Amino acid sequence: MQRFGQIIRLRPEKYEEYKRLHAAVPEPILNKLREANITNYSIFHRGGLLFAYFEYVGDDFAADMAKVGDDPATHAWWELCDPCQQPFEGDSKGSREGNWWLPMESLFHMD
Amino acid sequence: MQRFGQIIRLRPEKYEEYKRLHAAVPEPILNKLREANITNYSIFHRGGLLFAYFEYVGDDFAADMAKVGDDPATHAWWELCDPCQQPFEGDSKGSREGNWWLPMESLFHMD
Repeated sequence: MQRFGQIIRLRPEKYEEYKRLHAAVPEPILNKLREANITNYSIFHRGGLLFAYFEYVGDDFAADMAKVGDDPATHAWWELCDPCQQPFEGDSKGSREGNWWLPMESLFHMD
Repeated sequence: MQRFGQIIRLRPEKYEEYKRLHAAVPEPILNKLREANITNYSIFHRGGLLFAYFEYVGDDFAADMAKVGDDPATHAWWELCDPCQQPFEGDSKGSREGNWWLPMESLFHMD
């Protein structure tokens, strides 16, 4: 199992919308993530920073993420969420192909 | 079970020291956390931001954290780690009693 931490910024004026969207993520979106071997997935917020933590229990992360990226329902979901988010680097060029949610380095783990 | 997300800044010049310290946290420090019902604890870093994720499986978080705070070995450990970290608000007044690791709001969870 691999643990992932990722970070992105939340546009302050979009806080309420992002919170509302994530309080009721459509089941097909969640199921697609589960099929992609993602589990124990949380998103936290404070002061314009979003942090995502999840666990990956498959054996080909890139292939599983590509499957998620090929899902039309997931794309429609991203079209709702993406305007709420703001990447850290190269704001104007931020895209899901480039510098969207950024991976963090794990410095510590205790079971 | 409760999931916690917390955030603090890492002083850039202390990155290597913080990484080295957390690659070999003394077992008594870890055991004190386990006794305090903390589990699945990870710390991630990127760009001067530290994110902590852990799960609490007890039923009195404040009491358990107080026990950790009363442990002399943990205090000695904090004396090593704290100079690496920099709180977000009121830098000069940052202390473990005040604005040290800040809690984040959970906006989403999927099992």
